[in-house]
Amino acid sequence: MSDGHTVTGATQEDDVHGYTDAKDDYLKRLRRIEGQVRGIARMVDEDVYCIDVLTQIAAVTKALQAVSIGLVEDHLGHCVVDAARQSPEDGAAKVREAADAIARLVRS
Amino acid sequence: MSDGHTVTGATQEDDVHGYTDAKDDYLKRLRRIEGQVRGIARMVDEDVYCIDVLTQIAAVTKALQAVSIGLVEDHLGHCVVDAARQSPEDGAAKVREAADAIARLVRS
Amino acid sequence: MSDGHTVTGATQEDDVHGYTDAKDDYLKRLRRIEGQVRGIARMVDEDVYCIDVLTQIAAVTKALQAVSIGLVEDHLGHCVVDAARQSPEDGAAKVREAADAIARLVRS
Amino acid sequence: MSDGHTVTGATQEDDVHGYTDAKDDYLKRLRRIEGQVRGIARMVDEDVYCIDVLTQIAAVTKALQAVSIGLVEDHLGHCVVDAARQSPEDGAAKVREAADAIARLVRS
Repeated sequence: MSDGHTVTGATQEDDVHGYTDAKDDYLKRLRRIEGQVRGIARMVDEDVYCIDVLTQIAAVTKALQAVSIGLVEDHLGHCVVDAARQSPEDGAAKVREAADAIARLVRS
Repeated sequence: MSDGHTVTGATQEDDVHGYTDAKDDYLKRLRRIEGQVRGIARMVDEDVYCIDVLTQIAAVTKALQAVSIGLVEDHLGHCVVDAARQSPEDGAAKVREAADAIARLVRS
Repeated sequence: MSDGHTVTGATQEDDVHGYTDAKDDYLKRLRRIEGQVRGIARMVDEDVYCIDVLTQIAAVTKALQAVSIGLVEDHLGHCVVDAARQSPEDGAAKVREAADAIARLVRS
Repeated sequence: MSDGHTVTGATQEDDVHGYTDAKDDYLKRLRRIEGQVRGIARMVDEDVYCIDVLTQIAAVTKALQAVSIGLVEDHLGHCVVDAARQSPEDGAAKVREAADAIARLVRS
């Protein structure tokens, strides 16, 4: 049942990922971001000045990027490192997958 | 009652901004983004694989940037152009303000 | 001979753009950036540690973005504002063109 | 030759990095980018239209980002994976360092 990116030796690890330890922190940050997006919709609805809306969108984008960077670090530190310790092939596959995700992040 | 960034001579335009014509469209897009952020929190809560969470965050970031770019275009086409038609000084002030907002956007 | 994005009433304005006043400054910054890129090639040639190369590339990217943001501001303050003062149609065309350039910048 | 981020047990590898195998390719790309930056300076010197200069800067920024993403992938696949195979502590230190570099990249 292992999905190949979980801690070696665990018995029911399907759902254990790099970010599992910090899950509550990520959930809290994402809920705050959700509230900020709702706040931006309210700003638009109340005809707040364009520049102030833009400033708030830039803040939310930064907050989302910070979440992404945290997830990347957790992913490298768990899934990629674990795969590398299992075999060079598993490590190489995980590295390529992570690099593709980082590329999407840099370009977004 | 004018907030200083509206067309001179209008009588009740305090809350008319660059994006006013497209307000419903922006609200619809922001609500979709809010739902996407809620979906990302759900992915984290359900221990979805890190890379898939990252892909979804990149999609939301792109959607937010598209909203920003739309707002910038509306702002330039209304607030900045109107100010430039009023006086060179008003135009210059609006241009500087818009350039600062664009800089925050590029760096976010 | 006017190319449509120059100061109204000037007699030989073909090559007058938003950045003309600050041309020497832009040239100096671009030459510094060119030297930085050459320095990065030298780092790679001398097998400098990957992370240090990455840090230097991030610095050059930021320097290029700063040039872009300056050019956008100059462009808005001259070409776009001048067009808006000529006619709403000219202004609208310049705004759309500028917004497209800003979008490329945000996504790059 | 170990600089602390190379495979354990090697005795003379100071200058072997993640990108060593692809060094010629990186050098070629960086020289092309250097030429592109020189071309942008020439465009400014010849008073080319602002928007065309901006388009070219966006192309160079993208080319630099592509080099960065390649370096990150090479670094993860060599330095980080090798460190992880040596010890969890070495792996964790390299992961944190790589994550910081990725964060600078995303924000640049």
